[in-house]
Amino acid sequence: MSGKHVLALSGGVGGAKLAAGLAAVLAPEDLTVVVNTADDFEHLGLTICPDIDSVTYALAGLNDAQRGWGVKDETWQAMAMLGALGEADWFNLGDRDLGMHIARSWRLREGESLSSVTARLTRELGIVTAIVPMSDAPVRTQVRTAEGWLDFQRYFVAEQCRPVATAIRFKGVPGAPPSPRFAEALAREDLAAIVVCPSNPYLSVDPILAVDGVREALAGRKVPLVAVSPLVGRAALKGPLAKLLGELGQEVGNGAIADHYGDLLDHLIIDTADADDAEGLRARGLCVTVTGTVMCDADDRERLARVALSAARIETG
Amino acid sequence: MSGKHVLALSGGVGGAKLAAGLAAVLAPEDLTVVVNTADDFEHLGLTICPDIDSVTYALAGLNDAQRGWGVKDETWQAMAMLGALGEADWFNLGDRDLGMHIARSWRLREGESLSSVTARLTRELGIVTAIVPMSDAPVRTQVRTAEGWLDFQRYFVAEQCRPVATAIRFKGVPGAPPSPRFAEALAREDLAAIVVCPSNPYLSVDPILAVDGVREALAGRKVPLVAVSPLVGRAALKGPLAKLLGELGQEVGNGAIADHYGDLLDHLIIDTADADDAEGLRARGLCVTVTGTVMCDADDRERLARVALSAARIETG
Repeated sequence: MSGKHVLALSGGVGGAKLAAGLAAVLAPEDLTVVVNTADDFEHLGLTICPDIDSVTYALAGLNDAQRGWGVKDETWQAMAMLGALGEADWFNLGDRDLGMHIARSWRLREGESLSSVTARLTRELGIVTAIVPMSDAPVRTQVRTAEGWLDFQRYFVAEQCRPVATAIRFKGVPGAPPSPRFAEALAREDLAAIVVCPSNPYLSVDPILAVDGVREALAGRKVPLVAVSPLVGRAALKGPLAKLLGELGQEVGNGAIADHYGDLLDHLIIDTADADDAEGLRARGLCVTVTGTVMCDADDRERLARVALSAARIETG
Repeated sequence: MSGKHVLALSGGVGGAKLAAGLAAVLAPEDLTVVVNTADDFEHLGLTICPDIDSVTYALAGLNDAQRGWGVKDETWQAMAMLGALGEADWFNLGDRDLGMHIARSWRLREGESLSSVTARLTRELGIVTAIVPMSDAPVRTQVRTAEGWLDFQRYFVAEQCRPVATAIRFKGVPGAPPSPRFAEALAREDLAAIVVCPSNPYLSVDPILAVDGVREALAGRKVPLVAVSPLVGRAALKGPLAKLLGELGQEVGNGAIADHYGDLLDHLIIDTADADDAEGLRARGLCVTVTGTVMCDADDRERLARVALSAARIETG
């Protein structure tokens, strides 16, 4: 194979870990990490991009491994003041994290694109891998519940995913073109593989697939598409995936993940705890790798990255 | 005298101390504190109002007495992140302070007036005294130096007042009407006194006087105007007043303060260290009180407030 460029699609925390692993084992010029922006929202006048920030903090080594989200060595003083001022405090913003939101928000307001702002801020943090928003146009996830359509962060953070979800939609698509570097990565002559990181298929990966032309581009791919399942022991490590699958009438298992991606998927990497799923997946013509997918440290992340690249027949050093 | 309402005009730190003293000795309904907003500026997408915040923090008991500005128990994590992201870090913004700027900025952007936002946020902090911006229209101080006209915070913070100032101007006036509550206070039937707090006459009080119609209203006053001199021992306790007076061709002394206010001034309160100035001031027909004007604690602030009110013939309990 001539090409060796890898296009990774990622949501937040789980995806960010594999993205960090890929960034550690691939040369910077061989990787483009495209990140979901449908969780982004405007809050207190700031544009907050939770998944871009999770990937950024993970690649910069700034992520809080204990808490599982946000920046390490974080404090919460601005939020306490905002609370004292009677402002909304349902979305907890750390002080260091706020530095990021302030920088991004004012540059966006000055007219810079999200792609350009993201490239600038990640470069300043010393990140050499391209972290790319899926689109520079706003796309916003909404979840239908008995109370009506809820904006994603309202559902996810304020309501803590308690309402039963009956549908999911992405405001802004069609109509949101891929960001310039996403479009460029999809069209690369030397594209060698697409890796779908272990993120929620409905909430984190679907928005990326819903960007104008992306599903079609992936359907016409000439390279393997390898996904790492976000399930471990028929549950999500974090987030509402298992609950969502049930509410959307799916069995909680890798069969549902495979169903969901359908023809886009060539190879699914599943956790050893779900080894039982392998036979059924193979029976439907999928390649399957069974391995430990829980990433607790850098070694785990790099090992799983190598497994994913190997599944895509990419050689790593 | 029938009225007993006091209108105080204040800049930042020194003025804020006397404003806190006045708020401590007067019933809330008997005091309106009008604050300079010509130091306000837009920075990193936030609207920062240093003088309103100094007065607010002083009245809420949140001011940092040691440092002399900003909020007590402050941290600087967001600023460190902004620095790491390559953003301007010449204006130091604490985390708690940022909570204030974020709340104000987003509400202003939503279309609320500065008066309304200030009323809301000060009320939330438990302040019962009216803290009122001089105008809801933006007025911005600029200082002329050999490098041209500098925006105030550029001169004051980034350049630390080092350039020689040859002139001062206020962008936005004429054209900036007094805020509704300032206009109301000026027109009150029961207005009994105007107190000019110990703030820089050129940089903090002049902008208030430059608001549309204010100088005329004060010239036509029927009540005493009492000013507390910001000089102590022919120097300013804080800020560039002494340097400015020299550069603008004035002697550094209370004569220059009296010259500057001219017919607007009825009574000047000067520090014991400048007792020598009293004779000359009295010779030009001014009432003068000589007293300690350095305010180190609440007792000092309340004592000086009582002296100022007494000079204005207002009885306090």
